[in-house]
This record gives sequence, structure tokens and C-alpha cells, in this order.
Amino acid sequence: MLPVSPLAPATFPNLPPVAGVRLAALDCGVRYKNRTDVCLIELAPGSTVAGVLTRSLTASAPVEICRKNLSGGKARAVLVNSGNANAFTGKAGKAAAERSVRAVAEALGCRPREVFPASTGVIGEVLPDERITRRLPELAGALSADGWDAAARAIMTTDTFRKVATRQAEIDGVPVTINGIAKGSGMIAPDMATMLAFVATDAKIPSGVLQAMLSRGAGRSFNCITVDGDTSTSDTLLLFATGQARHRPVRAVGDRHLQDFRAKLEDLLVDLACQVVRDGEGARKFVTVTVTGAASDRAARIIGLAIANSPLVKTAIAGEDANWGRIVMAVGKAGQKADRDRMSVAIGGTVIAEKGGPRPDYDEAPVAAHMEGQEIDVAVDVGVGKGRARVWTCDLTHGYIDINADYRS
Amino acid sequence: MLPVSPLAPATFPNLPPVAGVRLAALDCGVRYKNRTDVCLIELAPGSTVAGVLTRSLTASAPVEICRKNLSGGKARAVLVNSGNANAFTGKAGKAAAERSVRAVAEALGCRPREVFPASTGVIGEVLPDERITRRLPELAGALSADGWDAAARAIMTTDTFRKVATRQAEIDGVPVTINGIAKGSGMIAPDMATMLAFVATDAKIPSGVLQAMLSRGAGRSFNCITVDGDTSTSDTLLLFATGQARHRPVRAVGDRHLQDFRAKLEDLLVDLACQVVRDGEGARKFVTVTVTGAASDRAARIIGLAIANSPLVKTAIAGEDANWGRIVMAVGKAGQKADRDRMSVAIGGTVIAEKGGPRPDYDEAPVAAHMEGQEIDVAVDVGVGKGRARVWTCDLTHGYIDINADYRS
Repeated sequence: MLPVSPLAPATFPNLPPVAGVRLAALDCGVRYKNRTDVCLIELAPGSTVAGVLTRSLTASAPVEICRKNLSGGKARAVLVNSGNANAFTGKAGKAAAERSVRAVAEALGCRPREVFPASTGVIGEVLPDERITRRLPELAGALSADGWDAAARAIMTTDTFRKVATRQAEIDGVPVTINGIAKGSGMIAPDMATMLAFVATDAKIPSGVLQAMLSRGAGRSFNCITVDGDTSTSDTLLLFATGQARHRPVRAVGDRHLQDFRAKLEDLLVDLACQVVRDGEGARKFVTVTVTGAASDRAARIIGLAIANSPLVKTAIAGEDANWGRIVMAVGKAGQKADRDRMSVAIGGTVIAEKGGPRPDYDEAPVAAHMEGQEIDVAVDVGVGKGRARVWTCDLTHGYIDINADYRS
Repeated sequence: MLPVSPLAPATFPNLPPVAGVRLAALDCGVRYKNRTDVCLIELAPGSTVAGVLTRSLTASAPVEICRKNLSGGKARAVLVNSGNANAFTGKAGKAAAERSVRAVAEALGCRPREVFPASTGVIGEVLPDERITRRLPELAGALSADGWDAAARAIMTTDTFRKVATRQAEIDGVPVTINGIAKGSGMIAPDMATMLAFVATDAKIPSGVLQAMLSRGAGRSFNCITVDGDTSTSDTLLLFATGQARHRPVRAVGDRHLQDFRAKLEDLLVDLACQVVRDGEGARKFVTVTVTGAASDRAARIIGLAIANSPLVKTAIAGEDANWGRIVMAVGKAGQKADRDRMSVAIGGTVIAEKGGPRPDYDEAPVAAHMEGQEIDVAVDVGVGKGRARVWTCDLTHGYIDINADYRS
């Protein structure tokens, strides 16, 4: 077991029940011993679903099933295991995933295409689905509205803390709840694939509207974080709406009544995404990169990710070195419009360089003090337009090498 | 001083003279003490030039001068300094670079647009050009056809060994020489920008033909290496042809008489590029990634670089772990066509996975032995076409973190 990340939240919220959602976790021995490794989430009849899945061209069998089932827009269950990603396992892996989906459908009395599987762990070994399916009666019997915390623990792999978040929102004056759990520490942890996140609400929202909100929210949260720039074969973010709340029907994503919900959902997604970064392998500093003045929001995000993915920037931050030259280098390689002679770079709120060079009156003291902290802010204005983005990452330390290179020894 | 990389070549060739090329090096105290840090290369009248420069949008002042001067196609001199990159230095940096170019033109009696400057070192400080220009009479007086080795040493920054290569070729039965020197250890070394390479031949080749050959050669050598995926503000590769050899005129790049020269030039460029990788910061293993079966050569290179840039692949190699799951992950994220169920992955010549999963009869012993060596071969066939590429990288070790994060302490 790795020690808990120094960037872990000081406290964890208690997740309240979400009407129409029940959860259970069990130790099925998929790979780990003496810990829970499977979680089942049951959703009330009529629940809608939206999802954002990995764009990897070598996606896992469960991801492909999710992609297919999302087109139906309805969900009744999620089955998640840790310890085995069932990725690059060919036809045998696909068959194992399909068997587990059918077993869940039988146990809960729903259709297989309403069941969403997710697997995370070692790549290249077929999921031992029988270890899970034989325990389904037990899992179904243990379902509880209070199972959020147990579920968040069961989906962990190399995570050093569970990732949970909750928000209250109002739709047309009616309160609704949004709960979310996530796992992930590297984009891929050692031999352990993936970022997974499952979010559920009791709001009543058609799947098309749900998808539009989730896609937009993911673009500002999970697609704005990076630990090592690697993309897993299994990344899965699913959002479920059970429709148990008694607000007026929602018809379109632009619906004024949805404004508060949209904001709270985005806030929750950013919260979960940042928790993943805070558990980044070997992370000792949490870094927020804000890019302004770009040609578009998209360009700003690309520039932000170029900075956040640069090993030279990340090692400089680990070394508490306010190395703005490396930040300029990263902007230059992003391939997006930037005006070298109008750019500015600030760290911890202090402008270090602007108008094509370092400020003559630059005072290093406040920046050096900021670099010693755990929360690092980098702000870059690239001087060409109004596009902006926020991106989050962590530093690159000896801990990352320890976890990823030395873990077999 | 860092210890010499364990991957350094066992021996260094003696570079013979190239007719029409003279070189000199001096310790001008640009930044370092007690070592040479400036080199002047003089080229005979009539010499042609071609170049490949960084695509960074925050390119340094010297790079912009080279870009402009390349359009003339003629060269008489190169002035290189280490210790200061003169990058992100605004108008003052541009003026300093222009002054040094004019001073060289005066000292050698040529036009400023025939002079090519290159600077590498700390970013954000204006080049102290006067420290160099006042020594130009000495530099000009020290020019010698035997100065290659001294020049290769003067351009080093955090390099742990000098990078030199030489080839003999024939054009139309007439022997010609190609010499090259390079520097670079990370894509950017700590605070020290850049990969630089200068290649010269006595062949007589028009600049347009020279450019076509260099662009093609760079695409298969310097653009196929990666240490940390970062791109410097100053990367510069220049090729000069003095025209002193007495072969028949060359008119087009497809000229049959150029076949041997093209092959030898490409071979020399690959040699220099691989030496840069062998000096990768903290490198302990030299990795050759061969990608076949891609939709195009370009797609193969993108896939190869995705593998070679993946921190998870590079740390696995550092840990001597034949982690083919991470290789599959990297192929998936490259965004190029790949058939998951027809892919194969081999390490050290042993096929580990094929047809969508691991080989059932996979024998780990020879692969484990290969991983313990210094030269690692990774071969991936992505199963969709005939595109192929070779890419070179090194492992990602604690040494990289030491050099890049801890060097200030």
C-alpha cells in the first residue's frame, strides 16, 4: 500500500442518498486479496444515461459495450471491478464482459443493454467473470442507498484515497442531489488502467440533454487534467439521472431552469477531476495552469495541456524552481497562435515576464515563497485573443519513477 | 560536471578536413568559466546552405536570423555560443544577435546574410555579444581545417560527451567527405536550450537540392528522436556544401549520382541524432522503436513517437519491465489507424502479443534478459498498412528528475 498522497483532501464529504440509486461492494478476489474489488450500482427504472469514453483506438471490451449501450440512453445498472482491465484480451475478453453484463441483467431483471460494465487493472488478462457473477446474489442483496463510500473504495486501484463529491442543486425550485465517485492516479497507474467516474442525480433529464451537459462539463474538467499525458484504454465517465425528483420536465440543454444544475454538475466534475490529479503518482504539488489571451478556448486548453504535460515544467515545479523559460518553451511547442513579444507569464500572481522578456523589476522573493507551497498557480497570457482555459496537473517527482519503474522490485 | 553517459560511444572518430571548411573555438566567458564556449566556422566563398529550424512559435532571435538568411541559400560563416540561448529576450536580444552577425561579416569580409548564428544556454538573458565580438580577431586567426573536435566541444552545454560523425561518399565517382557535429541531451537541458547540429561537405550541390535532401534526412533522424518530448526554442540543423570537390554538376535531388551521397548523409544524421539520445538526461537504456503496418510512414512515425514519449513506457523500460500493455496503450492514444485485433508487439525480437491479446506460449525468459541490456528493441506492427518508421528514445529514470528538478539545490 502506498502512503496517502500529501495532496489528499483534509476531509471527505458524507454522500447523501440519491433517490433511485442503490450501491453495494464486495471482495470477489478478482486480483486483490482482503479488500473490496467489485461494486454494483442499481438505478431505478426509467433512469437516463450519458457518457464520455476514452478515445483510445485500443479501447477495452467494457468500453466498447458502454459505447454501444449508451446509444439506448437508458440505464439500470453499473458493474465495476478493479484489479483487471479486460483490455487487449481479444474475443475471450469480449465474451467475459458480455457474460457479466447478462448475469447482472438477469439478477436485476433488466435488459443487458441497460447494464454498463467498467473494468480497471491489469491489461492483457481476460476478466475472470465467474468470480464476480457467482457473487451477484450477494451483491444484489447488499444494495443500499448508503453504499456510496463503499463503492468509491471498491473501484480504487493504486489510488491512495477514495474520491467522492456531492452537490445540491435546484431545478425549477425543486432540490436535487448530484453524487459522484471516481478513481485514477496516473492516467494509467502501474499496469492498472484508467480513470473511472460515476455520477448520479435524482433529476429528471432526457438522455440527449444529459449528454450535452456531460460533454461540455467533461471538456472543462476531466479533459483538462493530466498526470503524465498518457491515455488509458478504459477511461470511462458516466452520468445517470433517475428521474425521481418532482420538477417540471426539462426539454433542452439551454433551459433556464437547468442553469443551477449545469453549474453544480460542472463544479462537481472539476472537484472529482482535481482529486484524481491530487492523487497523481508521486505528486507533491498541485498545479493550476490558467491560459488567457488565446485565439479560442480550445487553443487555450491545448496550450495549457502543453505546459501541464511538459516534463521540464513539471520537474522544475518539483524542484521549486520558477523556471518561466520552460513555460515559454511549452507555449512555443503547443502549435497554437501565440505572440512571443506580447506574452506574459505569472507565477503565484507575480508577473515574471512580459512583452518578450523578463520584467526588469522582477522580485523573485514572493515567487520563491509560492513555489515552496503545495498549491502552485501558473498564469500565461499569450496575447492574441480572448480564449481561456484552466488545466490542472501535478509535479513530476522521484515518486513517479519509483511507482512506475521500480514497482516490480 | 555530470558523469559521462553510460550509453556514450566507446570511441570517437577523428574528423578529417573538409575542403573549404575551417573552424576555431575559444573560451569567451559567455557564462561558463575555464572551458571553450564559442565556435566560429568559416566556409569558402560559394558555399551553399540548407537548414531545418525549430517549429516553436517562441523561437529565439538567432533562429529567426537563420530563417531569414536561409532564403539566400549562401553561407560563409557560422557563429555558435553555448551558455546563453538569447531566447525570449525581445528587441534587445535581436539587436545583440544582429550585432554579432555584422561583426563576423566584417571580420571575414562577407555579407551579414551569409552568416548563421546559433545560441544555446540560459533563456531570458540577452546575449552578452561584446564578450564574443571582441575576440573575433583571435577566433579568425585560429581557424583551422582540423578544428572539428574543438568545435564539437565548444558547443556542448549539459552534454556529457561531444557528438561527432563523418562519412565518405562518392558523387559521380569523385570522393567527398561529410562531417557533422551536434549537441543536445534533453530536448532542452536544464535551463539550457536546444539541439544544435552543423554538417558540412565539400560536395558541390545547389541549395535547393541540399534543402530537399536535408528535409528528408531530418524527417528520418532528428525528427525521430525524443528524450522528453519537449521542443526547444532554438533547435537548429544546418548543412553546408563548399563546392570544392570536382564532380560533375548536380541538378536535381533525384539525380542518380546523388544516391550514395543521400544515403551517407542520412546515415550520418541518424548517427548524430542517436548520439543525442544516448546523452539523454539520466538515460541508462537506448531504445529503438520500430513501427510497421501503419497507414503511412507519417502515421508510423506518430505512433512511434507516442510510444517513445510515453512516461509509462519509458519508466517501465527503466524498471526492466517488458510491459507490453503500456505499449498498446501508447499506440491507442496516438490517434492513428491501428487494428487492435491484428496488432503485434515484440521486444528484443520475441513476439509477446498478437491478434488482440498475449501469446499463450509467450516465454518471458529471453525478453527479461533483453530488458536487462543497454540496447532495447521494441517492434510494433499495427496491422493496417505498409507504413513504417524507426524512432529512438531513452528510458526515464531518477537521473532525469535529479538533473531537471534538483539541479538548483
